[in-house]
Amino acid sequence: MENLVHEIIVTSYIRNLKAMKTILAKAKAHADTNKFEVNRFMDMKLAPDMFNFTKQIQIATDNAKGAVARLAAVEAPVFADTESTWEEITSRLDQTIAFISKFKAEDFKNWSEQKITFPWYPGKAINGKDYLTGFAIPNFYFHLTTAYDLLRQNGVQIGKQDFLGEINWINA
Amino acid sequence: MENLVHEIIVTSYIRNLKAMKTILAKAKAHADTNKFEVNRFMDMKLAPDMFNFTKQIQIATDNAKGAVARLAAVEAPVFADTESTWEEITSRLDQTIAFISKFKAEDFKNWSEQKITFPWYPGKAINGKDYLTGFAIPNFYFHLTTAYDLLRQNGVQIGKQDFLGEINWINA
Repeated sequence: MENLVHEIIVTSYIRNLKAMKTILAKAKAHADTNKFEVNRFMDMKLAPDMFNFTKQIQIATDNAKGAVARLAAVEAPVFADTESTWEEITSRLDQTIAFISKFKAEDFKNWSEQKITFPWYPGKAINGKDYLTGFAIPNFYFHLTTAYDLLRQNGVQIGKQDFLGEINWINA
Repeated sequence: MENLVHEIIVTSYIRNLKAMKTILAKAKAHADTNKFEVNRFMDMKLAPDMFNFTKQIQIATDNAKGAVARLAAVEAPVFADTESTWEEITSRLDQTIAFISKFKAEDFKNWSEQKITFPWYPGKAINGKDYLTGFAIPNFYFHLTTAYDLLRQNGVQIGKQDFLGEINWINA
């Protein structure tokens, strides 16, 4: 089963994080064409009491490195959450990809028995299986999608293919 | 491995579809409190050239029943895509839950070898593994999140817990 865990939280996450890098590049090109600073997107929100664009990327990447680290029972690198430029959030995606790329299927051998805890939920835990399926996966895609939706709403020319990234087509 | 496939596309999808029903109920309560027709949400879009709210729910549910049917190599029920009331889109969530609830882990025994085709991609196919991880999962959560974001941006009082649904906490 660890092969499928690896396929999801390493292979697919890398594909979707790379897809988000392409989306960031398209947002930059859009800003250049329309003669505004691309960094203007960083503090935008879909609603006044939602997280801004930068935070959506921070949480998506925290989810990716956190899921991989927790299910392999290792420590995740800590990122400072101080990104203030488009280059810095692009680089955060790169650092996340670099960290999770190192993991192989066998690193997740005991994934389903891990007892996952969070500092902000004292006294509570989730087992590895429920963490992966009920928390990690929906949460990762939630924040990537919200980042996408925010740029899409603000005129960046992106579509579903940009979100999904490369699809491994074969002949029918 | 079919246990994990079942856990994701049956157990988790049901949890997230039920969570979306709760979100629809909160949107209805919000509309009632603010004295407008909840159906007003149905044609709203995040951008003029994006799909409207109803279509986001239609695609999310198509993804759910489609993924389960394709990976179990059975036919999915066809829904007419004619929902015009809040009750009808709520009922579409119910019908999707009813269909996917019938599947057990052993129904997905040959999931990774399925050759998945789509009428709109003639001559092309994806194997079951790449379909699940690179298409079905990201796409399902993309449309659910976009539906959530749309209501959230328009004043419905919902948060991440509403999106995730019930978490199976254990003692730390």
